[in-house]
Amino acid sequence: MQHLTILGSTGSIGTQALDVVAAHPDKFKISALTANSNDQLFETQIERFKPELAVLVDKQAADRLRSRYQGPTKILTGADELAAAATLAKVDIVLTSIVGFAGLKPTLAAIEAGKNIALANKETLVAAGELVTSRAKAKGVALLPVDSEHSAIFQCLQGEKRSSVQKIILTASGGPFHGWTKPQLQQVTVESCLRHPNWTMGKKVTVDSATLANKGLEVIEAKWLFGMDYDKIEVVIHPQSIIHSMVEFVDGAVIAQLGKPDMRIPIQYALSHPERWPADFPRLDFSSIAPLTFAAPDTVSFPALALAFQAGRTGGTLPCVLNAANEIAVNAFLAGTISFLAITTVIERTVESHQVIFQPSLTDLCNADDWARSFADQIIQDPKQL
Amino acid sequence: MQHLTILGSTGSIGTQALDVVAAHPDKFKISALTANSNDQLFETQIERFKPELAVLVDKQAADRLRSRYQGPTKILTGADELAAAATLAKVDIVLTSIVGFAGLKPTLAAIEAGKNIALANKETLVAAGELVTSRAKAKGVALLPVDSEHSAIFQCLQGEKRSSVQKIILTASGGPFHGWTKPQLQQVTVESCLRHPNWTMGKKVTVDSATLANKGLEVIEAKWLFGMDYDKIEVVIHPQSIIHSMVEFVDGAVIAQLGKPDMRIPIQYALSHPERWPADFPRLDFSSIAPLTFAAPDTVSFPALALAFQAGRTGGTLPCVLNAANEIAVNAFLAGTISFLAITTVIERTVESHQVIFQPSLTDLCNADDWARSFADQIIQDPKQL
Repeated sequence: MQHLTILGSTGSIGTQALDVVAAHPDKFKISALTANSNDQLFETQIERFKPELAVLVDKQAADRLRSRYQGPTKILTGADELAAAATLAKVDIVLTSIVGFAGLKPTLAAIEAGKNIALANKETLVAAGELVTSRAKAKGVALLPVDSEHSAIFQCLQGEKRSSVQKIILTASGGPFHGWTKPQLQQVTVESCLRHPNWTMGKKVTVDSATLANKGLEVIEAKWLFGMDYDKIEVVIHPQSIIHSMVEFVDGAVIAQLGKPDMRIPIQYALSHPERWPADFPRLDFSSIAPLTFAAPDTVSFPALALAFQAGRTGGTLPCVLNAANEIAVNAFLAGTISFLAITTVIERTVESHQVIFQPSLTDLCNADDWARSFADQIIQDPKQL
Repeated sequence: MQHLTILGSTGSIGTQALDVVAAHPDKFKISALTANSNDQLFETQIERFKPELAVLVDKQAADRLRSRYQGPTKILTGADELAAAATLAKVDIVLTSIVGFAGLKPTLAAIEAGKNIALANKETLVAAGELVTSRAKAKGVALLPVDSEHSAIFQCLQGEKRSSVQKIILTASGGPFHGWTKPQLQQVTVESCLRHPNWTMGKKVTVDSATLANKGLEVIEAKWLFGMDYDKIEVVIHPQSIIHSMVEFVDGAVIAQLGKPDMRIPIQYALSHPERWPADFPRLDFSSIAPLTFAAPDTVSFPALALAFQAGRTGGTLPCVLNAANEIAVNAFLAGTISFLAITTVIERTVESHQVIFQPSLTDLCNADDWARSFADQIIQDPKQL
């Protein structure tokens, strides 16, 4: 029986993780859950999984919950309390499915407390890959990928030596606008952007998928998770999202992981590794499957991927700044303030203007994150810059 | 430094295996080579690799070789001497790339002598899977697959528990006549049959690939190599031969091995396992690759696959009989004696008429093989039966 904390239990990954846990009551006990502001769903989860501790970041939502909930679970509020959920004494694994830079501090707290991490918060490794992986190594904790691409690579690497790896091939659906030119992309609306062809995901990651910024963040995540040079990470567009990613080995053999686009498979694998547990997740049927196609990414229409490679290669605080600028720009796009193409422009301007600090501390990263958010906000307020 | 015997060094697999060995002079010493009758190529190989022992099965070819060759390699002749090459004291691995039932006896001799087997002779496991795998287990020797499909499965299973496997998915190119109806197949000539779309192989296996008998033999081979029930082995047509086979696990994840159709990759993997060695074999380029397509096998036009599943499920001497009938029928087709469609008819009639012996000894298998060859020959001589 493993004790589990889920940071971000009301989001897309969090709810699916609870489905996995519910299917294996003999394997897990939920010790703590956290959410941002969805107090109604959170209350249902607390009633069902009876955690010792529950943290609702939003104080008003926490007040609403406290006015209704009478059970034994201890309820805390505020972002600073996320670390309490992440470091609870009996917890073995922390699933980090908070979206964005906000996941960094509780993830670092969990690592310092010696908890294994099922990592669904890619921004943690994007912003602070050097710091997080070095602390994880020092503390001897595992960083288990939950992202479908990184889980695929992790599965492909089982039983193989790292020295046998030639390169990692990250597949990308290309999002809803694969094949579009820049003039066509000027017509993109929030609504069309949120219709992802294959995956049902949160809004942030769906927009990131459409700009290819998501793949850029995943490249940086892969660099840190698997200790790979950027020269050994390749991105290939694969619109069907059936091959979730691949590894090419030094002998020319390629190992790939395939499956229906269902996040429960990688979520469960992060929790079951090195075992696999029987599950009735939908199966691929190769006798009826559509052709699997592949193409090189279009870096003219979708420059965010190349920007991420550049920021990753530079290193230091720059990937953190790229991530922060992207978060601000995506929010502005979702709010109707800026256009789809302006998302990448905001990232580009912010990254260009940043003074990089190398081997950053957590404080350096928080400062860089703050700076980037202010800078990106300023650009967004000034239409001449877009 | 490992000492290697290659049984069948002048064939397609044998020559490519020597290419692999030549690329890794620090890893291998060739101790023995054997061939059937190609004394000229065999002499070149002996000069280059300087084995301790060389066996040329055909006596006239051996006489020709002896009349020219003056070097230190000991030259023997006759099928009975293959076992001498397979059991040489210092040999660590025997690569069995003899085609057909003729590979069985020397393979068994190698197993009894405690040699690891790199198995490119699928007929050994088809005809005598029960006997060979039980002797290999008793002797503690490894059976390392060389067939591209079985190597793919073997690679996909690295780092995984057998209990996690849901099923094996063997891919089949479908051969040059994929999509053809029975009336169309009546027009097939030997020449059109030998033009395989993806692989350059020996004639026997190329014809087997066109009838799907090859995939049937591979199903039986997979059953024994991986200890899988027939219900857990699926065949999928994949005309591009890029995905070499797959494994579906109990959690729904599928792991696949991909690569250019180049037999040197699986040959080298059988020799390097569990390592992978750097090689300049051609790489897949996903940015320019054609769509990968899949379909269920057509068991009406290509009944040999279903016949193999039936023979495998019955077991005993029946797979041996299926294999022998196929060998005779393919030879008759290549000689212009029978039509393409008659190959499967010969197999079907022979299998139907066989009295199965269960848990057969080597003698039982040799008798069944002899009987099946005579019976198949009789059918071929009597056009009314075809």
